[in-house]
Amino acid sequence: MRSISTEPFIANNSPYLPPARPIVVICLDGSADEYIDCAMAQSRLPHIQAMTNRGYRGMVRGALPSFTNVNNASIVTGVPPVVHGVSGNYFLDPETGEEVMMNSSRFLRTETILAKASHAGRRVAMVTAKDKLREILSHGMSGIAFSAERADATTQEIHGIENVLELVGRSKPPIYSPEASLFVLQAGVALIEHGLADLLYLSLTDYMQHKYAHDAPEVVDFYAAIDDEIGRMLALGAIVGATADHGMNAKQNPDGSPNVIYLETLLNERFGGGIKVILPITDPYVVHHGALGSFAVVHLPSPDLIEPAFQYIDSLEGVTEVHRKESAARRLELPADRIGELVVMSARNVVLGRTEAHHDLNALEGGLRSHGGRYEEMVPMLLSEPLSFTYRAKAFGDPRNFDIFDFTINGGAER
Amino acid sequence: MRSISTEPFIANNSPYLPPARPIVVICLDGSADEYIDCAMAQSRLPHIQAMTNRGYRGMVRGALPSFTNVNNASIVTGVPPVVHGVSGNYFLDPETGEEVMMNSSRFLRTETILAKASHAGRRVAMVTAKDKLREILSHGMSGIAFSAERADATTQEIHGIENVLELVGRSKPPIYSPEASLFVLQAGVALIEHGLADLLYLSLTDYMQHKYAHDAPEVVDFYAAIDDEIGRMLALGAIVGATADHGMNAKQNPDGSPNVIYLETLLNERFGGGIKVILPITDPYVVHHGALGSFAVVHLPSPDLIEPAFQYIDSLEGVTEVHRKESAARRLELPADRIGELVVMSARNVVLGRTEAHHDLNALEGGLRSHGGRYEEMVPMLLSEPLSFTYRAKAFGDPRNFDIFDFTINGGAER
Repeated sequence: MRSISTEPFIANNSPYLPPARPIVVICLDGSADEYIDCAMAQSRLPHIQAMTNRGYRGMVRGALPSFTNVNNASIVTGVPPVVHGVSGNYFLDPETGEEVMMNSSRFLRTETILAKASHAGRRVAMVTAKDKLREILSHGMSGIAFSAERADATTQEIHGIENVLELVGRSKPPIYSPEASLFVLQAGVALIEHGLADLLYLSLTDYMQHKYAHDAPEVVDFYAAIDDEIGRMLALGAIVGATADHGMNAKQNPDGSPNVIYLETLLNERFGGGIKVILPITDPYVVHHGALGSFAVVHLPSPDLIEPAFQYIDSLEGVTEVHRKESAARRLELPADRIGELVVMSARNVVLGRTEAHHDLNALEGGLRSHGGRYEEMVPMLLSEPLSFTYRAKAFGDPRNFDIFDFTINGGAER
Repeated sequence: MRSISTEPFIANNSPYLPPARPIVVICLDGSADEYIDCAMAQSRLPHIQAMTNRGYRGMVRGALPSFTNVNNASIVTGVPPVVHGVSGNYFLDPETGEEVMMNSSRFLRTETILAKASHAGRRVAMVTAKDKLREILSHGMSGIAFSAERADATTQEIHGIENVLELVGRSKPPIYSPEASLFVLQAGVALIEHGLADLLYLSLTDYMQHKYAHDAPEVVDFYAAIDDEIGRMLALGAIVGATADHGMNAKQNPDGSPNVIYLETLLNERFGGGIKVILPITDPYVVHHGALGSFAVVHLPSPDLIEPAFQYIDSLEGVTEVHRKESAARRLELPADRIGELVVMSARNVVLGRTEAHHDLNALEGGLRSHGGRYEEMVPMLLSEPLSFTYRAKAFGDPRNFDIFDFTINGGAER
């Protein structure tokens, strides 16, 4: 085995003292804790079960909105959105007035743990399921960074690696499949085995959780397959930490139809037009969720509308929280210049939409399960190593999912 | 075995169609889901594991404040506090101006499922750990109702049963012990075995959860012992449903000291006196929590103070939500006439206190773990029987912990 750098480094003012073992952080996209519960009850997660017993399993608080880009950006930086600047998958750029995807590293306002680790001599690899995350999360990093989605087209220059399919020994998986996530983990195993990486961030996709409830046999099989790969990493001597970017809840009426508040329609009917509702869940992968989640920002054509619109939205059944810009920045830790005048969250079983015409509900497979709000904020954290006294105290405070690199790198008792 | 009534009944406008099997609903007081996770990972919960696999395990939303009396009252009535009227363990009675415990059935504004079941011919038994709950929860019921705390002093006239210790075959447990809860379950088993009850509500106490984190060996043993008793009920042919009144979180600083905002002190310093902060967690069992929880109501001497006090409290670090009376009634489902002008909730790791002098922190054993706020709202639901199609749809909506009688009685697929 090649030697592993233990040079300490600092990222966003936090120190990291990496041990001389492969370190793997996994983002189990969309893993509400119930998914782990059901698979574990069926004795299908021997390695996660062993991690729970030897290391730690507990709940941590994610960043809001409980969406993928926001929380992946938080995880790789170790700081909340108000610091790193990524407020959604999608936003209305105030500089251009355009609605754009927030996939580019030009939206990232801070350095990343991955970049700083790579500069400190770690062999860093970042593998994502969806390609949308690759560029933003690998910003400033030297090392390997690719997605399962484009695993057949990596170059040394851009991705730091060639012939990924050969390395992993699998064909490129379809993005709407459990294999899209499993490939990410299989790639992680192969990278460690071949000595190509000793600090890894592996970020899965939540296609399966959008599609299946926590006790569906398909999803239990999926978690069992995840557990297999985690077992391989542990067998290779890796320290493994895992968390989720967000949870997942059914957002349906009893008849199975999506339970939607079309907020832009309601607001424009009431206040006479010109109001834009931006749904930061929006991304190109509509089969997952049809761009429907439990979080929306509202852009008003005039400041005079702030109070009446606040009162009106606050009165809507199914809305659970409304924040003005100041309170969204302070309480939800959002960058004030990248949200609208109002921020809205909806109930456990309710999503926010723009207009009926805006959403293709036919694209949804098997009912609507989604996220974005307060009821998808709490997620599991799993650690393979016993925690030190200090990190146990931290775990019994208000630990965040974006502390996962800190817990995984610094948290072990046997140092 | 004696015959079991299957006569349908209605309670608070909801129908119940009880099958001809013993039905047991258990309130696992203070059971944050993590407690079950850790004990199950250690393979110590074979019966709960079997319930998960054969029946259902998922998360349900409790009533706020996430306190014992509020949620037990919700569970036995099937309705939220705005309907049943119990807004805490403790409140400022507007009729008398006195601060009083909310233990008496005179505070209950609705009928109970237990009372209506007993009138429909079920042999109903209600066993609680703490005696404080007995009178209020057994209101209007004919049948058996006693507490572990006073199990040595039951009378036929008041409790519907004599010689409980002999029946259960145990001595009376100390209230600050795991046995206080286990006795409740053992009593349930004995009542079913002797044909004395066929619809049971068994409500435990959270002493262990206040004292121990979810991965402490003591608490794992406790859950294993709970699982044993559940196994006995299942072996007797019972349908078992279990949920919790609230979750539990550490509320400490990294040094282990309680993380308290003394709200009454802060408000009176700022606004010149006369402000009362009521902590609805207050009860006679101070070893649990020192009357410190994550929920407070504020009584102001003048309506002029509502807005400035709202703004001030809203600005405090560690406060997560402030509600005016109207929004507390609507969003938190609280009875408007039994709360103050403002309702306050604090963060996952923060509690709200009155004044330093008001709380005896020395009474706390082993650090502060408590509840009351939003981060103790979500709790597990466990059901022994597979759910019908209709009740699966309900479970994947916004199910509540106080739907537990509905799920347990009406939810089974094999009817």
